[in-house]
Amino acid sequence: MAGAVQSVVSLSKALPMNGGNGLYSYANNSTYQNKAIVAVKDLITEAIAEKLDTSLSSSNTICITEMGCSVGPNTFVAVQNIVEAVLNKYQNLVHDHSRLPEFLVFLNDHALNDFNTLFTSLPPDRNYYVAGVPGSFHGRLFPADSLHIVHTSYALQWLSQVPEEVEDVSSPAWNKGRVYYSSAGDQTVKAYEDQFAKDLDCFLHARAQEVVCGGLIMILVPGRLDTTPHDRVFSNISYDILGSCLMDMAKMGITSQEKVDSFNIPIYFSSPREVEATIEKNGYFSLERLECLPLEKSQDTIQQKARAVSYHIRAGLEFLLKEHFGNEIIMDELFDSFNKNLEKSQVFELGLTYSLFALLKRKTTLID
Amino acid sequence: MAGAVQSVVSLSKALPMNGGNGLYSYANNSTYQNKAIVAVKDLITEAIAEKLDTSLSSSNTICITEMGCSVGPNTFVAVQNIVEAVLNKYQNLVHDHSRLPEFLVFLNDHALNDFNTLFTSLPPDRNYYVAGVPGSFHGRLFPADSLHIVHTSYALQWLSQVPEEVEDVSSPAWNKGRVYYSSAGDQTVKAYEDQFAKDLDCFLHARAQEVVCGGLIMILVPGRLDTTPHDRVFSNISYDILGSCLMDMAKMGITSQEKVDSFNIPIYFSSPREVEATIEKNGYFSLERLECLPLEKSQDTIQQKARAVSYHIRAGLEFLLKEHFGNEIIMDELFDSFNKNLEKSQVFELGLTYSLFALLKRKTTLID
Repeated sequence: MAGAVQSVVSLSKALPMNGGNGLYSYANNSTYQNKAIVAVKDLITEAIAEKLDTSLSSSNTICITEMGCSVGPNTFVAVQNIVEAVLNKYQNLVHDHSRLPEFLVFLNDHALNDFNTLFTSLPPDRNYYVAGVPGSFHGRLFPADSLHIVHTSYALQWLSQVPEEVEDVSSPAWNKGRVYYSSAGDQTVKAYEDQFAKDLDCFLHARAQEVVCGGLIMILVPGRLDTTPHDRVFSNISYDILGSCLMDMAKMGITSQEKVDSFNIPIYFSSPREVEATIEKNGYFSLERLECLPLEKSQDTIQQKARAVSYHIRAGLEFLLKEHFGNEIIMDELFDSFNKNLEKSQVFELGLTYSLFALLKRKTTLID
Repeated sequence: MAGAVQSVVSLSKALPMNGGNGLYSYANNSTYQNKAIVAVKDLITEAIAEKLDTSLSSSNTICITEMGCSVGPNTFVAVQNIVEAVLNKYQNLVHDHSRLPEFLVFLNDHALNDFNTLFTSLPPDRNYYVAGVPGSFHGRLFPADSLHIVHTSYALQWLSQVPEEVEDVSSPAWNKGRVYYSSAGDQTVKAYEDQFAKDLDCFLHARAQEVVCGGLIMILVPGRLDTTPHDRVFSNISYDILGSCLMDMAKMGITSQEKVDSFNIPIYFSSPREVEATIEKNGYFSLERLECLPLEKSQDTIQQKARAVSYHIRAGLEFLLKEHFGNEIIMDELFDSFNKNLEKSQVFELGLTYSLFALLKRKTTLID
């Protein structure tokens, strides 16, 4: 297994992320993901060295997709890792290096992603061809049998939607007084868990058509141990603190209680057992490897850490917050308050942070 | 040959076009191209019916690229034409319609193109997969042997750069006092003609690597008859009028004579003989068809036509003008003056407008 990741938190990537290059842009607030990606480099290299079948491509082109690419720069690091690992493998096999494969890399994210920023920040000296693919990875995006390697990093924790029952006043899963599931009742948690499983199944079903037999999927997603309670996950505690800030604003009359009740963050932190069960039930892929990687505590001060978390969550959630609360809530005020409450909280002592790494291989037949 | 195109002018498509959906956006000022595209529908359908080899693709996917796509909507009309023509051909050949091919369409334009607008305006009910490819089509953009059909419409008239000697004060081709070649001296015209030939050769050289043997390239480009003098081409007259407006502004001290001298519009209107010579010299493609399509006069009033031309040229050139003249020139003033001078001119009586349509097939060997 790769060395433990040198980061305090595994924070999440929203759709769409804040675009451009400003203070609260995703591009300037995604160092946590970057640390996680660097740490799994060895896992990716091993996966390709051991599990990639070099006879997969009928042409001389390897087609790779990076799903949930956002606006970079992390996505370019991940892509370069994969391309180098494949090249290394071929260099050991092919004597005539003019016969090394070419690479076509499809960078995918929602159609509202800032592809303009992504395309103008592509590494100029890259050794692969690039295309951008707009659309949800929960559905089909590519022709049948057109992909050899799929990589997705810090994206699958985003649910395709808030579970319907969580927003249904008549349901026992209704999430009154909170904006997140982690300190909610069992039925709310179950609704989130089911939505994650359903979304992962949709993702795998679509990829099963698109990935050639023997092709690989590498998933990196923030998660938790099977034994970690939801309310001990670092990010979950943070989202609950954000929820309490919103409720304070409702009490002060800045927004309404109803608005807070009907806002829910569509993110879920799964465990290895949950991921494995969904892959097995889906049936199209064999699970070749599943790791739960702890992320080490940072040595920064509480103030530095609170600020980083606040900026990071703002980059991910600002779009959703503005869409729901409109101009009622001033983002600077909300995140100032969030920052202060993070500093006062015990999240930096108590919060646990793990990333899950899963390596899947497309079965040749369903009896594999 | 397809019926004559129902449009008064063949105007050009700049890189980058004005993005978004505003008054001067390309999306709202590209009806001329649309008319031309609709008119060549029959030519495209015939080309595919007669010249496309249905054994080209080793998988069940047809890969198409639309080069110089800008932000739509014209590009979607062109793509739909091509996809339908291919499907029609296969439907006549394949009895089991579940075996019909799938389509992956690569929409290409410069990295500064507004891909965000393009991606959010994709037809929701399309029967093809889409990827955006940022970069200059004068160079490589795709892996070897990865494309079956290339289509480019109203894009190749844009030169990769203003010919160097045209901007060189010490060269006999220096274009002092003008912003365009069409009423310039022979050496300036020759420099533009050579640049067009060089750019087309680069385009064909790159495509020769990317297109499978037997694959097709369809080029639609505004041009002229072999016998049409440059200064009788509708768009050329218009650009000369725009140049005279800029020189008026220099005389009024709004900008400097030097700024006007060093600004040149990187567009060239070629003739069938020039296009044919370049394709032959390049050598990778056989020229299967070459048509020069006249565009009919519109029935609009002079005022309507002048306004449309003014808006259209603004959508195409505003980026370049702003880049060169900065804030010295107010665009509204320039194009008001341009509009008035168009109305007073004889361009609508004298200007000639043609589109060239070329169908090329990738040779199997260079001896073909």
